[in-house]
Amino acid sequence: MSVYENYVTQFGSFKKIDAFGYLDYLEGHPDEPRKHGKVVLVTADTPLKASRGEGKTTTTIALIDALRARGIDAAAVLRQPSMGITAAGSKGGASGGGKASLTHPELVDWGLCGEMAAIAAAQNLLVAFAEKAVDDERLDTIAVPRVSETPSRSLRRVRVDDGKNNIAERVVLTPTCELTQIVVLSRSMDEISNRVSNMVAGEKDGQPVRFGDFIDLWRITNILTEAVKPAYTETMQGSPVYVHCGPFANVSIGIPSLVSVEMACARHDVVVVEAGYGTDAGAQKWLDIAAREYGAQWPSAAIVVTRATTWRDDPTLRWRYPFHVHRLESLGIPAFPMINLWDGEDDQVLELRQQASHLKFREPIVGNLFRDGGDALVNQLDGFVAAVQNEGIPSVPGSHKGMDILEHVRWIADSAYGVPAERVVMRDGFSESLQDARALCAALGQDLNDYAVVAVKSPATMTDNDSAPEESRSVTLKKVEVHAGAGLVQVNLTSSLTTPMPKIV
Amino acid sequence: MSVYENYVTQFGSFKKIDAFGYLDYLEGHPDEPRKHGKVVLVTADTPLKASRGEGKTTTTIALIDALRARGIDAAAVLRQPSMGITAAGSKGGASGGGKASLTHPELVDWGLCGEMAAIAAAQNLLVAFAEKAVDDERLDTIAVPRVSETPSRSLRRVRVDDGKNNIAERVVLTPTCELTQIVVLSRSMDEISNRVSNMVAGEKDGQPVRFGDFIDLWRITNILTEAVKPAYTETMQGSPVYVHCGPFANVSIGIPSLVSVEMACARHDVVVVEAGYGTDAGAQKWLDIAAREYGAQWPSAAIVVTRATTWRDDPTLRWRYPFHVHRLESLGIPAFPMINLWDGEDDQVLELRQQASHLKFREPIVGNLFRDGGDALVNQLDGFVAAVQNEGIPSVPGSHKGMDILEHVRWIADSAYGVPAERVVMRDGFSESLQDARALCAALGQDLNDYAVVAVKSPATMTDNDSAPEESRSVTLKKVEVHAGAGLVQVNLTSSLTTPMPKIV
Repeated sequence: MSVYENYVTQFGSFKKIDAFGYLDYLEGHPDEPRKHGKVVLVTADTPLKASRGEGKTTTTIALIDALRARGIDAAAVLRQPSMGITAAGSKGGASGGGKASLTHPELVDWGLCGEMAAIAAAQNLLVAFAEKAVDDERLDTIAVPRVSETPSRSLRRVRVDDGKNNIAERVVLTPTCELTQIVVLSRSMDEISNRVSNMVAGEKDGQPVRFGDFIDLWRITNILTEAVKPAYTETMQGSPVYVHCGPFANVSIGIPSLVSVEMACARHDVVVVEAGYGTDAGAQKWLDIAAREYGAQWPSAAIVVTRATTWRDDPTLRWRYPFHVHRLESLGIPAFPMINLWDGEDDQVLELRQQASHLKFREPIVGNLFRDGGDALVNQLDGFVAAVQNEGIPSVPGSHKGMDILEHVRWIADSAYGVPAERVVMRDGFSESLQDARALCAALGQDLNDYAVVAVKSPATMTDNDSAPEESRSVTLKKVEVHAGAGLVQVNLTSSLTTPMPKIV
Repeated sequence: MSVYENYVTQFGSFKKIDAFGYLDYLEGHPDEPRKHGKVVLVTADTPLKASRGEGKTTTTIALIDALRARGIDAAAVLRQPSMGITAAGSKGGASGGGKASLTHPELVDWGLCGEMAAIAAAQNLLVAFAEKAVDDERLDTIAVPRVSETPSRSLRRVRVDDGKNNIAERVVLTPTCELTQIVVLSRSMDEISNRVSNMVAGEKDGQPVRFGDFIDLWRITNILTEAVKPAYTETMQGSPVYVHCGPFANVSIGIPSLVSVEMACARHDVVVVEAGYGTDAGAQKWLDIAAREYGAQWPSAAIVVTRATTWRDDPTLRWRYPFHVHRLESLGIPAFPMINLWDGEDDQVLELRQQASHLKFREPIVGNLFRDGGDALVNQLDGFVAAVQNEGIPSVPGSHKGMDILEHVRWIADSAYGVPAERVVMRDGFSESLQDARALCAALGQDLNDYAVVAVKSPATMTDNDSAPEESRSVTLKKVEVHAGAGLVQVNLTSSLTTPMPKIV
């Protein structure tokens, strides 16, 4: 039995892995055999709408099946799908499809091992403790939202304690809350405990009050005992897949837990991380938050998925896909176009390749992955495998810590959305919101400029109007929200609607 | 490997058992070796307050440890504690204490294998589907409450869709919702599906609309895949314990799932079922709902737990404990008084035994179970073991199906609380509420009198004023609520406050 097995327990149809314990063991035992796998991102074109993915999970699954068929020890790290959304039928699951499927997609889609439910219970308990602190006059206002795993448009704005204090609240989807972010970013239960302690519960006499000032932190960490452990499952072809945390790169950080990726890298040579929705969301956040600010690995390559139709059908949006591919290349990340064909599209392959060549892409990978799974890819991966294997683990570009927050946002708009600083505009109220955030941080003895920036926007747009001509595209800054425990500042941008609490469609 | 093992999967520190599958197999294979265990209830005096138990779970654990030490194959079936309440510190866990403890009490108390969280997600999804049905003009009003596992007093009354439709709603604790009742009472996933289909979603043009009229039932049952399976754990002494569903016998049925008990009976000779809060709550519901109406086994004996202090300290409430013991005896259930001593009370044993003798109780069982566990009991169980072993499985008294609902409630008040029919009074509005319930059932093509009655009341009182002299004690009927899917009619009674959504204390 390997040391790893000591950290694994069966959990119904899954295994759960004590990644904190295993990585801690490896750190304390540098001679223990381990791998130093490379991270590859599977990301995508900006989707035409959030409910219609390009097939990132399907690609991820097919890719590791194909790599393993070529004798490479590859594994995938997936984000846990948001159960409510899937169960409600608003969106397909995020567990692949057809021949590129997981063994138990219905269980992955619909609750996994209860991780998000436990995070929801813990976040809602924080709100309940804050409410008690109001009763006890330790707090005047509450700053943390309640969460729900079930989408329900009427929860966007609620009033609690109806008929008495009539307190306005909002409810957000569990995966988007600060506690989920904390679980994603933390490398030990102590770190989680410290970060929860630093979460701002609300205000008393105009000053921020942290949860650490009045709650027993063990009540929260106890609830998270199993939730912090990544789940392990397999593809239908038997390839290893880890699933943990993190959907919704539009309104949150939207990445799997850092320890799930690090554990996979200690176990496999190539670790494929799904980063969606599009390159402007999940990949941007992996690169600029996880890697630059939280010690995650810079990817050795990226696969950028699109559909034949997404790429071409809307001439005004056709700029986005090449923008993403070239942006990744400009960061030194070999970016492989992957065109995920639907039924009846096989005859378009030649034309798609010509178009890719015209755009100076690398040779694209093309296939119907739902129908053919990894078989569609196995003979198209020479360039990809060479890119991943020929270099060492890339170094990470510098942190943005200390960069003025406004400069930071302008840099994101420029590099990730192609909008220069002069067309990043501030909506009425943004300056005040920013000032409040700075004041809050100052009251906490911190500097807002040291926080990592989370862009909050529609998953389907990068700018105020992606269909506008390039020279008139703009980004509007709307408001700022501080997540002091996670060390993140969320900036709402673009004029498109973001709906953290979707309705059932 | 026994057939049973085919229905067992490891789930972290627990095992989960596919009780539906196992019991179905046994039914189809009458020659398969199995046991026909007897059910014993561990119930209690009415607590002085809900947050202070008498030690039912501690007694249950000590009892099976002691029975097994005597060579009897005993097991316990516990209700899953309400995680939010425990985590919030409002109440001790429900997993025993001291030497009478489970191996993983912190996991049992704080989420088990995610069963309640899954039920919460499914019930909240039903509400979200109902909301969509309102948008689609298939419903005018919604009849099902949202649920939360986290207590929060300000969720008792909320308004959703604030600023637009401002819809008043209430949120209840997960274990008290109709879907939990359905999981408790059902013996197959098909039965769950049928019962969910029959739940009343709301009204359209004054007529009730069932969920089966507009939702895909598999979306709900998929979420419940693992939640319907009882969890298996052990006491510190290695005795078998099944945990599944069902706290809150004050505001709901408050019993473990029927299949968890039936499975335990197929595996063990004596199955100890915890039925609290007091005899007037959990035991009344086990006898009058589970056994009389839903095919559960009538108990072969009962242990009625009290503390020395609960029994005696308040002279005006001293009548309750003997009332409970004598009531169970009057139903033909051998009722053994059990006095659970706290530290410093060992010198009271003689006096307590004299008092028991004076009250014509059976010889009481006395011990400090937190300190001594099953060791305190092992030599005091001769009478109990004889009572359980000397007779066959008792027959169940007749069903009350068809009894007029008002008669039915009066019968409960008389038999379970000692209040005769003439002092069961109706508060303003009760008649209208009852009339509405009858009309609702008629519109569903059913008869309200065929439903089982769930008394909803404070856990700490049986009457409007338990401290009043016997001849003036009354029960006030407040309102009626139909749970058509579960086949239950809930009747709120007594003038004491019931708080289905408690606050953190």
